[in-house]
Amino acid sequence: MDLTIGLDIGGTKVAAGVVDSDGHIVEKLKRSTPAADPGRTADVIAAVITELSGRHPVRAVGLGAAGFINAAQSSVMFAPNLAWRDEPLKKRVEGLVGLPVVLDNDANAIAWGEVRYGAARGRDHVVMLAVGTGIGCGIVIGGQLYRGSFGMAGEPGHYRVVPNGRLCGCGNRGCFEQYASGSALVAEAREFARQRPAGAIRLLQLGGGTPEGIGGPQVTQAAREGDPAALHCFQAVGRWLGQGMADMAAILDPGCFVIGGGVSEAGDLLIAPARAAYEDALTGRGHRPLADVRAAELGPDAGLVGAADLARQIL
Amino acid sequence: MDLTIGLDIGGTKVAAGVVDSDGHIVEKLKRSTPAADPGRTADVIAAVITELSGRHPVRAVGLGAAGFINAAQSSVMFAPNLAWRDEPLKKRVEGLVGLPVVLDNDANAIAWGEVRYGAARGRDHVVMLAVGTGIGCGIVIGGQLYRGSFGMAGEPGHYRVVPNGRLCGCGNRGCFEQYASGSALVAEAREFARQRPAGAIRLLQLGGGTPEGIGGPQVTQAAREGDPAALHCFQAVGRWLGQGMADMAAILDPGCFVIGGGVSEAGDLLIAPARAAYEDALTGRGHRPLADVRAAELGPDAGLVGAADLARQIL
Repeated sequence: MDLTIGLDIGGTKVAAGVVDSDGHIVEKLKRSTPAADPGRTADVIAAVITELSGRHPVRAVGLGAAGFINAAQSSVMFAPNLAWRDEPLKKRVEGLVGLPVVLDNDANAIAWGEVRYGAARGRDHVVMLAVGTGIGCGIVIGGQLYRGSFGMAGEPGHYRVVPNGRLCGCGNRGCFEQYASGSALVAEAREFARQRPAGAIRLLQLGGGTPEGIGGPQVTQAAREGDPAALHCFQAVGRWLGQGMADMAAILDPGCFVIGGGVSEAGDLLIAPARAAYEDALTGRGHRPLADVRAAELGPDAGLVGAADLARQIL
Repeated sequence: MDLTIGLDIGGTKVAAGVVDSDGHIVEKLKRSTPAADPGRTADVIAAVITELSGRHPVRAVGLGAAGFINAAQSSVMFAPNLAWRDEPLKKRVEGLVGLPVVLDNDANAIAWGEVRYGAARGRDHVVMLAVGTGIGCGIVIGGQLYRGSFGMAGEPGHYRVVPNGRLCGCGNRGCFEQYASGSALVAEAREFARQRPAGAIRLLQLGGGTPEGIGGPQVTQAAREGDPAALHCFQAVGRWLGQGMADMAAILDPGCFVIGGGVSEAGDLLIAPARAAYEDALTGRGHRPLADVRAAELGPDAGLVGAADLARQIL
């Protein structure tokens, strides 16, 4: 058994697992992330690794971290939801745990997991879009993760889709993830409930009576029940997602899109309108093949499974 | 001397040259393109090659064609400004001239020329934007041209920058090239002359008295003279170009942008506002290196020089 540890490090929690070479998780742990303190974040990461490596003969560790990773894959240069700034995470964790560490972006780890064991198994040119609070993305070109010149490729959440549009956490306006994400879905539903409460009775009911009480799970539940307002919200967000896929196809021409992230658990509620909008907006449609548009298969474990496999591949 | 022939095949003319391994053009020819007739277009291409190969010991031919090329690089699947539809151009020209032929997109050939002999010599991750009537693009990843899954990567002229925006020749609305191109520059200048004729005296003078008489060369001349209206037009188009570069950086993170095409002959009139807008709009700015933004160096010969080198590289 060739075992490695993979970690998915987000702004609120760290998920870690011991993974075998078939992508099966042998053991899994979760810890909350002390996001405000870079040193304590690294300590939590090290403690989880030490605990798992005490019970399993692992030979390497892969970290998928929610931040911009430098091209040398040694440091987190900037993380929107963690306190890391030019944090030499690879060396710091290696020093704490005594195992070789591979560092990558969390969305890259998810994309890699899906290419190795999930919806894009064996595909060469893949764009994985993780639709959650924002948009995460991993790009696979020629069977390898593409990281760009400075390690920062694959951030389509921050290309501009609306001039002077909605304000984004990155400081710009009109970014893709302000229109095609879980946050956008919830904003759409709350806006609907405010403007047309008579049409949003089920959403408001699930949200405890106020627009502010409506979250992603409530919109998904209402949409699954066939509620027209909730379906409208999924269609709006799905259409933006599909337009973004057409935009990325104009630039990258992937053979396969994988749609992952929390919102994608709604399945065809999101993916059907996205696929329709992609096919409708694709430049040169009718004169070119369409990319496959697939739902992610590994769910919330994709990041740690992918990170574990990156550790296995590189070392 | 290792000689190959390169051709740049556009909607109005074919430029062909015999090129040596230092990228020097030994002899050059130009012919107009019978664009409406695929058979006659191929005949003109073959005649030019036969003429040049009769005078020089060439071993291969590279074709850079203004159209979507399939992934096998054998056919032009669709060409907006030529009558080619699923045209097996490689085989047809090989049959006519008896030399091995390499087929690629014209913008790919330009990008390759600039990477081999021009502004991006020795660079690994490059985006070349050819700003002409529309936007051409070639993407170099890991030192190789990136063609995508189906051969159609590098068409950012048709990603959407304005929802429900200006109508594009591709049938969609709001495409990048409707805002950042020579056509956009001319449209901006004519609109200015129509709406504010008192501020466009020099532009109207150069245009023979009417807004419709104003073309790209007139806007460039007026801008070079310091005319505020013409400078305004270059700044507007340059800002859109820079925003597009920031968008592409969010996705591809190249180390170098090369700005070519006819409009780029205006130099810093276009490139200075583009660079400023790129630096202003780049997501994560301040936490990541900036890409170099360079003017193309090979001018109108880049396409044939690049095509000739592609013939040399592949065979």
